[in-house]
Amino acid sequence: MTIKELAKELNLSFSTVSKALRDIHEISDKTKENVLKKAKELNYQVNPFASSLRNQKSKTIAVVIPEVVNDFFDPVINGIESIAQEKGYHVLIYLTHEDLQKEIKITRLLQNGRVDGVMLSISAQTDEIKHLETLKEKGIPMVFFDRVVSEISGPKVITNDFQSSFQATEHLIENGCKKIAFLSISKNLSISDKRTQGYFEALKKHNLAFDSNLLQFYDINNTTNFENLKKLLNNSNRPDAIFASVETLAILSYEVSKVLNLRIPEDIKILCFSNLKTVNLLNPPMTTITQPAFEIGRESADILFKLIEKKGEHFLKEYTVIDSELIKRESTRAI
Amino acid sequence: MTIKELAKELNLSFSTVSKALRDIHEISDKTKENVLKKAKELNYQVNPFASSLRNQKSKTIAVVIPEVVNDFFDPVINGIESIAQEKGYHVLIYLTHEDLQKEIKITRLLQNGRVDGVMLSISAQTDEIKHLETLKEKGIPMVFFDRVVSEISGPKVITNDFQSSFQATEHLIENGCKKIAFLSISKNLSISDKRTQGYFEALKKHNLAFDSNLLQFYDINNTTNFENLKKLLNNSNRPDAIFASVETLAILSYEVSKVLNLRIPEDIKILCFSNLKTVNLLNPPMTTITQPAFEIGRESADILFKLIEKKGEHFLKEYTVIDSELIKRESTRAI
Repeated sequence: MTIKELAKELNLSFSTVSKALRDIHEISDKTKENVLKKAKELNYQVNPFASSLRNQKSKTIAVVIPEVVNDFFDPVINGIESIAQEKGYHVLIYLTHEDLQKEIKITRLLQNGRVDGVMLSISAQTDEIKHLETLKEKGIPMVFFDRVVSEISGPKVITNDFQSSFQATEHLIENGCKKIAFLSISKNLSISDKRTQGYFEALKKHNLAFDSNLLQFYDINNTTNFENLKKLLNNSNRPDAIFASVETLAILSYEVSKVLNLRIPEDIKILCFSNLKTVNLLNPPMTTITQPAFEIGRESADILFKLIEKKGEHFLKEYTVIDSELIKRESTRAI
Repeated sequence: MTIKELAKELNLSFSTVSKALRDIHEISDKTKENVLKKAKELNYQVNPFASSLRNQKSKTIAVVIPEVVNDFFDPVINGIESIAQEKGYHVLIYLTHEDLQKEIKITRLLQNGRVDGVMLSISAQTDEIKHLETLKEKGIPMVFFDRVVSEISGPKVITNDFQSSFQATEHLIENGCKKIAFLSISKNLSISDKRTQGYFEALKKHNLAFDSNLLQFYDINNTTNFENLKKLLNNSNRPDAIFASVETLAILSYEVSKVLNLRIPEDIKILCFSNLKTVNLLNPPMTTITQPAFEIGRESADILFKLIEKKGEHFLKEYTVIDSELIKRESTRAI
């Protein structure tokens, strides 16, 4: 069976069939489907094109993340690159800056097939997922990590956000806190929901009433965050602890405490989800829920290459969970 | 004058001339040159193709940097993106991880013309520049920033490394230091040279002898850095100050001082080139030479787009210098 014979069977030109087999853009998806179906039927060996198909690969994967200033994403990228390097792939990094519109533009760009696979951690603003669904429908191998979208099927790599948050809140309660403020960056993110739930559940277990003033949302791109947090803390009725769901808000909490002359941990305790590299050098060192960032990157990349190479992708789990670790430091010491 | 007439004049086919004018790969550079020369001669308006030429653009620029864990590159990227966004361009980030081989692979990838322009800050390991020269020869618009290669002509955006380093060293001397160690990451980088020179000149001006044991080079990828620095400081004859040329080495210095129970600034003073976001929260807050990172990114991108759009590129200077600022904090206070 040759392309010529295949073309005759399909009543198409040689050129059209050849292009369809090579997945060239000018041929419609419908025609490509027909050609591939017939090729299979007639047992046409697509192998002769294997090498040109291989050449078409960009040998590049894209990583779409909200920011790099956060010390979490740096080890994630290192984890991804440790795998990509073994595979001879390049890693491209796209930043959304927590901006939905940027995320949409980037996914549109990635639809053009310039990369062989995509890894995403969505922006805090992302409250619609059509652009992600579209990318998925194009058949580009995709893996979500950390900030995942549960509505889109496919492999996701996360940490145990609920349990970690529960454990951290309980640690604050055990060390004497009764008014714990929870600072979050988004009402949309899966991780925010789970972290908030963990906080709720720990309050409930210890019979502490939930105070809605203590659950606060900050937009990272706002310039008023410092003043807003200052208002919360510069108050006789202020919280006795801050649980920041992201690093940036914990740093902000340290800065505001300093300005207000609040002593950590005597006047206020602070902890957060963080991979901050200077955490031990802070005054005082900060208690953190440290995420397995490198492992999350490595595991996500490993799964992505299973999808790209079509090896064992049917055995992939929907969720891969790698545990975080609560590391107790001076900022939450019992007084 | 039409393409047909132009083709006749050149004794070439319509298709060849059309492709040459659209800068299509299959046409040789020599033919393209001939076509463009003749087109100019006969006053052929290339304008009708302006839109298709525009469509060929990838609308993407690449930023090649050594790492993101360093808080310098995050605001640089923000500066670049602030311009790229105005222009409707995407920004791709490639990390070399201070590794020459990775840098070579990335530049090879970029030669294929997948991006419209490249901005580079070279790795600490880079002691050969053939790969960068090759990229330059391909005609891809290029701008170097911060870690530049003086041997390659073209626009470069830097900060005043020599003067900043001189001023910082002088500040330590004025506050009583006599044995200032200078920690650097590379013998190859232009910025290392200039920073080291600034340190030398300040010692000279103040009649302090240079001690070669106090000039130390650390490979960021080594795991022995902590032990090596500990050896330097755990010594009766130890330095009374550390001037770290990069952030990572300053953080290392804080960590080693903590382990050895050396008080900062009483037993040892520490300062460094840094844009660390937690600098005010460290124990104690660290004196820094803060680089105009956002402005460096913005200026570099602005120049790159002048090259891409061929607007005013003949007026570009070889070097654009944006000054850094010495911010004195507790870590270098006079005792």
